[in-house]
Amino acid sequence: MEVAQVLHMNGGVGDASYANNSFVQQKVLCLTKPIREEAITSLYCNTLPRSLGIADLGCSSGPNTLFVVSECIKTVEKLCQQLNHKSPEYKVFLNDLPGNDFNNIFKSLDSFKEKLYHEMESRVGPCYFSGVPGSFYGRVFPNRSLHFVHSSYSLQWLSKVPEGVDNNKGNIYISSTSPSNVVRAYYEQFQTDFSHFLKCRAEELVEGGRMVLTILGRRSDDPSSKDGCYIWELMAKALNDMVLEGIIKEEQLDTFNIPQYHPSPSEVKLEVFKEGSFVMNRLEVSEVNWNRNAIDDWNSTRDFEFERPYESLGDGGYNMARCMRAVTEPMLISHFGEAIIAELFSRYRQILTDCMSKEKTEFINVTILLTRNA
Amino acid sequence: MEVAQVLHMNGGVGDASYANNSFVQQKVLCLTKPIREEAITSLYCNTLPRSLGIADLGCSSGPNTLFVVSECIKTVEKLCQQLNHKSPEYKVFLNDLPGNDFNNIFKSLDSFKEKLYHEMESRVGPCYFSGVPGSFYGRVFPNRSLHFVHSSYSLQWLSKVPEGVDNNKGNIYISSTSPSNVVRAYYEQFQTDFSHFLKCRAEELVEGGRMVLTILGRRSDDPSSKDGCYIWELMAKALNDMVLEGIIKEEQLDTFNIPQYHPSPSEVKLEVFKEGSFVMNRLEVSEVNWNRNAIDDWNSTRDFEFERPYESLGDGGYNMARCMRAVTEPMLISHFGEAIIAELFSRYRQILTDCMSKEKTEFINVTILLTRNA
Repeated sequence: MEVAQVLHMNGGVGDASYANNSFVQQKVLCLTKPIREEAITSLYCNTLPRSLGIADLGCSSGPNTLFVVSECIKTVEKLCQQLNHKSPEYKVFLNDLPGNDFNNIFKSLDSFKEKLYHEMESRVGPCYFSGVPGSFYGRVFPNRSLHFVHSSYSLQWLSKVPEGVDNNKGNIYISSTSPSNVVRAYYEQFQTDFSHFLKCRAEELVEGGRMVLTILGRRSDDPSSKDGCYIWELMAKALNDMVLEGIIKEEQLDTFNIPQYHPSPSEVKLEVFKEGSFVMNRLEVSEVNWNRNAIDDWNSTRDFEFERPYESLGDGGYNMARCMRAVTEPMLISHFGEAIIAELFSRYRQILTDCMSKEKTEFINVTILLTRNA
Repeated sequence: MEVAQVLHMNGGVGDASYANNSFVQQKVLCLTKPIREEAITSLYCNTLPRSLGIADLGCSSGPNTLFVVSECIKTVEKLCQQLNHKSPEYKVFLNDLPGNDFNNIFKSLDSFKEKLYHEMESRVGPCYFSGVPGSFYGRVFPNRSLHFVHSSYSLQWLSKVPEGVDNNKGNIYISSTSPSNVVRAYYEQFQTDFSHFLKCRAEELVEGGRMVLTILGRRSDDPSSKDGCYIWELMAKALNDMVLEGIIKEEQLDTFNIPQYHPSPSEVKLEVFKEGSFVMNRLEVSEVNWNRNAIDDWNSTRDFEFERPYESLGDGGYNMARCMRAVTEPMLISHFGEAIIAELFSRYRQILTDCMSKEKTEFINVTILLTRNA
């Protein structure tokens, strides 16, 4: 499986689209807002750039895509007003893999800009947007062209399925039953990928540039602990049931492994330290409930708004299954074919509903704020 | 009609796509290759840039899109080898209106880069590609961020249908029967738009930056001469026939005007002179036959290759109608609705075939090479 070819969120704006099923990612963006504000404020006040390169890596395509950009620009403009500075010029780079639905983003840019100018009463520097396709595990931008890099819920995706996980039978990710070589292979792939990511960004960022990264991770030091693996264990359960009923062949399941790794805070910290190009200013761990209804309750209390708020459409399992489908469907189709998808997600939904009714289910987010060394 | 919303080539790679019906545009690129080589060579030798910003404005989506970029990079690399210089870094900006099929371009970038590295035996500087949606009649790029700007067969499109052309009855563009106010309105819109284009590019280009522009134009000084209007007169003929048969309402035709202007060499020269930011190094006029078969004959003798050569699919009228359809369909649908399209192009094909069999039919191209003033 070529991850760069098959990993992309469901495009368009239909029922199964990522655009309509990214409420978890949205909540995460809200949770991590204070860290971005801290990053942008210290960046602006310390470097006073006349031209500000902002990149969102793994920008996807939906209501979340331009949220962070809008927030950054507003933060800078507020600072400019307070300090009586002229607004800088903004160069906004939206990056994702080539399969991402960039057309959809581009069509929304005019109305986004209009809204921004309106909200800011036209007191906003010129904004130049571009779409930059390519894997962030390689170089994506010219040398020293960026001031602020943001990435949320993307770096848990590995550049490839780790090698040597053939004996991970019946699993699709690390699980409590995975052999130790599988756990090691996943962790090593994360180390290689994340370290390479840091090296590339170090070349692309100016000295003093800031980076805020949120990674879907875990709290526990044990990579096979439930808080890092549960969501995939439940999908594996659905797939295993389908193997038992002869809908999927066993070898098909045995050769499928998700190219993700959910790192712990200390694993993230260690790679940043080892790579050496960045100072870590902050590390925070937060959680987001799988249950969209819990998220909706929380949504109603927040003091800022997304372009298009999500509607509650069904029970928690239904929403969570849709969310996972928007993220994994192209990859699943490429391995198992299209025919099993509806059945798989119907079963997955049942499993999710059942387990969300019995226990607290949540994703763990590891967020770090880094500054590029001088 | 909002031109920026409805003007885009047919997307995708299907039968009616621009990607499969842009043979005229391809031939024009071949014809103007020497001017681009001259521009790139003088640019490189005079400025020796370490980082080279190249923009293609109106890049569309198809086999032509990356042709010019590839050619520019190869020209620079050849110079670097001759002069024993280190390769520069290339920043490639692909611009078109937001409705353009950028997804299609982005998916082809990896194989494009692989092919380029292979052909150049890996002796090529790092290339960074981005897609930049937006009208080139406004600012698209940051200040002084570009070294070379290219645009082919895009600047004949106006930013809007000129105002005050309501009395252009039975026509869809300037024709020999157009009232003089219509001709004047079209010319004034061209002047406004082209002058604004030059002003914006002057801010975006570095001093000494080069620009090569090819505009679908005319030879004659008279804007209503046949060499500038014929292609639209023939489409108007098909539409008028459909009005007579009650398929299209007369007021629908009367309110439709093509937002194009085919300037003469002296009109182009005058605007460049008046705007004042550029020195004109060269102006050339060339022509390209409407007949794809004539183009194919010519294709077989050329010494360089496009990624995907066009196949000859039918008579000249068939090919030309497809070519025009790929370019105008979204705009025609937005005004007349989808129902008339097949019928319109079937009639247009007949008219084209008839007239191509009787006379020499060709497009006139005005190409200029400009240098940004110090």
